[in-house]
Amino acid sequence: MGNQKLEEKEQKIHDVIISPLEIIKNAQGNVLHGIKKSDQGYFGFGEAYFSIVLPKVIKGWKRHREMVLNLIVPIGSIRFVIYDDRESSKTFDCFQEVVLSRRNYCRLTIPPMLWVAFQGLENEDNILLNFANLPHDQKEVDKKDLYNFRFIW
Amino acid sequence: MGNQKLEEKEQKIHDVIISPLEIIKNAQGNVLHGIKKSDQGYFGFGEAYFSIVLPKVIKGWKRHREMVLNLIVPIGSIRFVIYDDRESSKTFDCFQEVVLSRRNYCRLTIPPMLWVAFQGLENEDNILLNFANLPHDQKEVDKKDLYNFRFIW
Repeated sequence: MGNQKLEEKEQKIHDVIISPLEIIKNAQGNVLHGIKKSDQGYFGFGEAYFSIVLPKVIKGWKRHREMVLNLIVPIGSIRFVIYDDRESSKTFDCFQEVVLSRRNYCRLTIPPMLWVAFQGLENEDNILLNFANLPHDQKEVDKKDLYNFRFIW
Repeated sequence: MGNQKLEEKEQKIHDVIISPLEIIKNAQGNVLHGIKKSDQGYFGFGEAYFSIVLPKVIKGWKRHREMVLNLIVPIGSIRFVIYDDRESSKTFDCFQEVVLSRRNYCRLTIPPMLWVAFQGLENEDNILLNFANLPHDQKEVDKKDLYNFRFIW
């Protein structure tokens, strides 16, 4: 779970928003809120897609240069790690770790220019919905090897 | 599975759109398309939420007088039944049945003024994402008892 450096410097990264979401109980099956046009984390709509993360697998690192991510985990449990290498940022060189699931049911809003990787924690399907302000475009995505940053998975 | 009347009259209801969606294979976990702003079934964005349907349970009937539903089933399997009682419709008094899952991975676009009910088919979580053009508003929703229409569940 991270290394000493990480623990020292971990904090909420500037501009990342964690919005607790409502789960509406219903005997026939609950309703889970996602995102509304009036929400703080809404920056327009371009595309919504699901990404499955198999147990223990880590996807990342990726950086979107333009896309704002809105991440919700309706199934399983996913550990997100965010790394800030924006030189002008108040939280330059910080990591932030967030675990989302129905037990910690929140929406994670990640602005462009941050590095993100995520890991499936449950021994079943782990699924995120990314509600993005732009349609997917490989040209605005940067990738780095998983061990590029000093985060110990 | 329905009754004789249903079988005689079942057809695609006018204005309902079924859009096959792509599943992008990935050894770390697949990516499942949802909806893009440029898609035929996109009628604007108001709210996205998940609805869980427990095994065998049926939720419905409901009719939205204004909302366009865009329904996607990333987990489990859900049987949707749509009933058209719009007197001016080409498919007046017809039912349409659609089963969505990752095996029949499509988006179901349902315009306002149609009745919809849906049933969880798998013995696990059955989850739909509704990507709607309007935020949820109880005032534009009509409800009927499950046995109000001549559909035998």
